[in-house]
Amino acid sequence: MSLAVGDTASRTTVVSQDDIDAFARITGDENPAHSDNAWSRASRFGGPIAHGILTAGLVSAVIGMDLPGPGTIYIAQTLEFTAPVRPGDTITATVTVAEVMPKRRLRLETVATRGDEVVLRGEAVVLPPREA
Amino acid sequence: MSLAVGDTASRTTVVSQDDIDAFARITGDENPAHSDNAWSRASRFGGPIAHGILTAGLVSAVIGMDLPGPGTIYIAQTLEFTAPVRPGDTITATVTVAEVMPKRRLRLETVATRGDEVVLRGEAVVLPPREA
Repeated sequence: MSLAVGDTASRTTVVSQDDIDAFARITGDENPAHSDNAWSRASRFGGPIAHGILTAGLVSAVIGMDLPGPGTIYIAQTLEFTAPVRPGDTITATVTVAEVMPKRRLRLETVATRGDEVVLRGEAVVLPPREA
Repeated sequence: MSLAVGDTASRTTVVSQDDIDAFARITGDENPAHSDNAWSRASRFGGPIAHGILTAGLVSAVIGMDLPGPGTIYIAQTLEFTAPVRPGDTITATVTVAEVMPKRRLRLETVATRGDEVVLRGEAVVLPPREA
């Protein structure tokens, strides 16, 4: 069965300070805004926040694991960071098929939320595997 | 001194399988395309590839650490994944000021390369800290 407009999948994750620290090590983004320290507590956010791209990784996990899933080629992604994510936040990433494009590509609506609040929104373009 | 069009910064990183494995754990994206296993070796890429969003994290590290650096608010990012990144690849992420926008925002050209080959390109919109 092929994917159709409106098909949707989501994953829910609690983002921990350990996750944020590991993301900082992997990417080299050791910006103090992301660590639990005096700098981040004095910042406009009052404490550490997750890297925006870490939250984007939760969206890409849904694409890579669930919809369309393994074998998908990730072509493009747009991201708007609409609210900070803090350690301990429960984030739900949701992917919905928005358009079946030429050459079997799919346009996906991608969003991450904390409760009713959108923390990240954007769109992806992917090439699903032939069997999807 | 404030930032001006053409200002640029870059960072170079070797992406390891350990980095990719850790990124998979953090985000939950355990898609077999990213692990060193029979599935990835049989894939069109002939072996594991890095998550596209991991490479995006190398770009965001330049934004968060160097240009504009700590205190920057990340507003938006577009990403085009133009070539796969494999374990052992040396990736250079470069950020260049493309436009000074209203309300002190900056539009940044963002690119990641392996030698002469572009593996990721896009644009960011950020609000730099007042001192930048």
